[in-house]
Amino acid sequence: MPEVDLLIVGGSAAGFKAAIAARKHEQVEKIVLIRKEQRALVPCGIPYIVGTLGSIEKNLLPDSMLGDTQLVIDEVTSIDREAKTATTAGGQDFAYRKLVLATGSRPVMPRMPGVELKNVFAIWKDADYLQTLQEALEAADDVVIVGGGFIGAELADECRKIGCNITIVEMLQHCLFLNCDDEFCVRIEEKLKEADIRVLTGCKVQSIEGKEKVEHVVCERGERIKADVVIFAVGVKPNVDLAAQAGLAVGEDGGIVVDQYMLTSDPDIFAVGDCAEKYSFFTGKPIGMRLASTATREARIAAANLIHPRSQRNLGTIGVFATLIGDTAIGVAGLTERSAADQGFDYVTGETAAVDRHPGSMPGATELRVKLIFDKTTRQIIGGEGCGGLSTGEVANCIATLISARMTVDQIATLRVGTHPALTASPLVHQIVNAADNAIDKM
Amino acid sequence: MPEVDLLIVGGSAAGFKAAIAARKHEQVEKIVLIRKEQRALVPCGIPYIVGTLGSIEKNLLPDSMLGDTQLVIDEVTSIDREAKTATTAGGQDFAYRKLVLATGSRPVMPRMPGVELKNVFAIWKDADYLQTLQEALEAADDVVIVGGGFIGAELADECRKIGCNITIVEMLQHCLFLNCDDEFCVRIEEKLKEADIRVLTGCKVQSIEGKEKVEHVVCERGERIKADVVIFAVGVKPNVDLAAQAGLAVGEDGGIVVDQYMLTSDPDIFAVGDCAEKYSFFTGKPIGMRLASTATREARIAAANLIHPRSQRNLGTIGVFATLIGDTAIGVAGLTERSAADQGFDYVTGETAAVDRHPGSMPGATELRVKLIFDKTTRQIIGGEGCGGLSTGEVANCIATLISARMTVDQIATLRVGTHPALTASPLVHQIVNAADNAIDKM
Repeated sequence: MPEVDLLIVGGSAAGFKAAIAARKHEQVEKIVLIRKEQRALVPCGIPYIVGTLGSIEKNLLPDSMLGDTQLVIDEVTSIDREAKTATTAGGQDFAYRKLVLATGSRPVMPRMPGVELKNVFAIWKDADYLQTLQEALEAADDVVIVGGGFIGAELADECRKIGCNITIVEMLQHCLFLNCDDEFCVRIEEKLKEADIRVLTGCKVQSIEGKEKVEHVVCERGERIKADVVIFAVGVKPNVDLAAQAGLAVGEDGGIVVDQYMLTSDPDIFAVGDCAEKYSFFTGKPIGMRLASTATREARIAAANLIHPRSQRNLGTIGVFATLIGDTAIGVAGLTERSAADQGFDYVTGETAAVDRHPGSMPGATELRVKLIFDKTTRQIIGGEGCGGLSTGEVANCIATLISARMTVDQIATLRVGTHPALTASPLVHQIVNAADNAIDKM
Repeated sequence: MPEVDLLIVGGSAAGFKAAIAARKHEQVEKIVLIRKEQRALVPCGIPYIVGTLGSIEKNLLPDSMLGDTQLVIDEVTSIDREAKTATTAGGQDFAYRKLVLATGSRPVMPRMPGVELKNVFAIWKDADYLQTLQEALEAADDVVIVGGGFIGAELADECRKIGCNITIVEMLQHCLFLNCDDEFCVRIEEKLKEADIRVLTGCKVQSIEGKEKVEHVVCERGERIKADVVIFAVGVKPNVDLAAQAGLAVGEDGGIVVDQYMLTSDPDIFAVGDCAEKYSFFTGKPIGMRLASTATREARIAAANLIHPRSQRNLGTIGVFATLIGDTAIGVAGLTERSAADQGFDYVTGETAAVDRHPGSMPGATELRVKLIFDKTTRQIIGGEGCGGLSTGEVANCIATLISARMTVDQIATLRVGTHPALTASPLVHQIVNAADNAIDKM
């Protein structure tokens, strides 16, 4: 039986990063990464396969990044924690010193009549499956996307690029309802509509109809929408079967229970990425936000603690993400007003909008709107949202850094920023600074 | 004699921001801003008048931003601190409760034969003067820019856009030598050369030759460069004549001495922006870095302290700036390796480069290189430089925030970032995080 210093189960973003980061330790000589898929995908790039990239091949994680980590294409089916061994479907056994579970998540597929019909898809991170989806989309006229979260919205925007008629059906009041506040949701809905995407909100799908192949999507309130292809994008569920089989604790949100060091209830087994429970930076409670950026962060922390126990701590998930619909980007970090209220924060917001160039007559100037959310008691920032041009992703990262550093509204109102005519707003109206300044007036 | 709650002397970025920020206080009823210039310019936009904007009118600070602050076009020539009055060249007197000096800076013009010739310019923040420069440039074939700092480099890039033959003459080893480390300087020099701009470094100008009008620039090492227009962009000098006349202390770097609250040696007079002495965030010592973003920050701090004394502190200048040459941006925050070494820091660097999209096959993907500099003793970040596409300006702001928050290399190696295919690098290779990770290996 091969003996390995580190066995990694799962080969998406978290597994890849765990291998790369662990490779830096001289003490970790032999690393084996076992994944089911022949080819690993860039997870966030999946919607962009449809139109912008045009092929699965352009969205692969290069296995060369794994260096001398041994890659095994197989599926781990059981773990014997006492013997410290893992067994695969292909009949291979591995003895491990440390184990990292990075088994990821799978798309939620609601139970309703018709979901078994041909051309009904979910977003599985599987190249062959997505190839079938891609071919179906290329042959389709009418596409219905169920779920207007950011994956659904991005998919809609991409399907439009290859000429499909698109309808998004979202159960909640707005697209991106769980990710940002109403005014930002509305902005994205406007962009979707501008791109001739039909957006039905507050609308629940009841069934899928068709013979053999999907033909219609039927909503509870009565609409019957023609569909050659239906894609469900209604969230993900952590893959914890293997962990549960091995007797590891699973948490209330469905992920593998981990401590601040990314250790499971077994001191030799870490869990990172979508399969692991996420805890809020703000409340410490489980939250259901699963992102590739969070996954790689957890993998870095686990890899550091592998050799130097308790050297890196995970103080919780802030939740930082960005998306782009048409030419308009949204970036969010931390709590929204909605989630702040849900969690009982007494909060104050500050908002501002200004173009992201200066003077405003500079070419390419695009309005960037920023809203920041502060806890009234501590005056610390607990969230921020931005909507603007292509720099919005890094603006969200700047907000995330302010949150990580637990900066106060007073510190942010005199934040040190650099400005340049072709790259940022004017220093007179820098969005983050001015939003904090406006919040002070309401404190 | 009119009695005013707040008298602001100077109407560029700092004066404007002081007026806007002070306006928020109910207790400050009457604000007067006195400036010499009929029209106020966006300071950072000045190089862009030449080509991108094409006219002075497109680079004006709108006076409407001043709201009900009374604007007086005149020049304050003396201050009587005991009587708390100011007198203008036009013979007006004002009694003030609080005074903010925002008298700015003026370009340094070296003494050498020929600087008095026609078509020899410096970058005065004066619309009429710059109109003359603009007309001279539009009629010129050969232009020599003396000084390859960021203003000189931006001017060169702009002059090229209107078809001039450009030579930059820089005394130091590299363009941007005082702003960033060699590898970033070299990158900008390459971009300048790609744009057919001649770059002479380590080359000192000895004299300007011509009858009446400039004809040649003569360098110490012998070159004689044909020139229809010469622009000196060799730094600025704080305008402190008025402050000195009023008996206020002037510091070793030539700026008005201020404390952490932006107060001068007079408890009723603040000084902000280029006219005020700057102190390093890292050492507390005077430094010669003058930027509009620093100026507006100081104005915000002074305005806060106007009514609530000592409510906001200036803990020093980090120095955050960005520039764009061709399609390549540079962003810098804090110390460079050069300045860290000069100031006796025992430092470690971490570097990484990755495209700013993911997968790399996404359209518009541009390499973004980031170097971070850490103090070996405290493990805190003390500087960072980036070179890449249009998001580099906000990346520099993110680095500036890390510095402000005094984050350690360990915290940054597990920084929370958000990523998106069309907006940022992959979470596997996020530049700031990976640069910190690389630095840890060298600690």
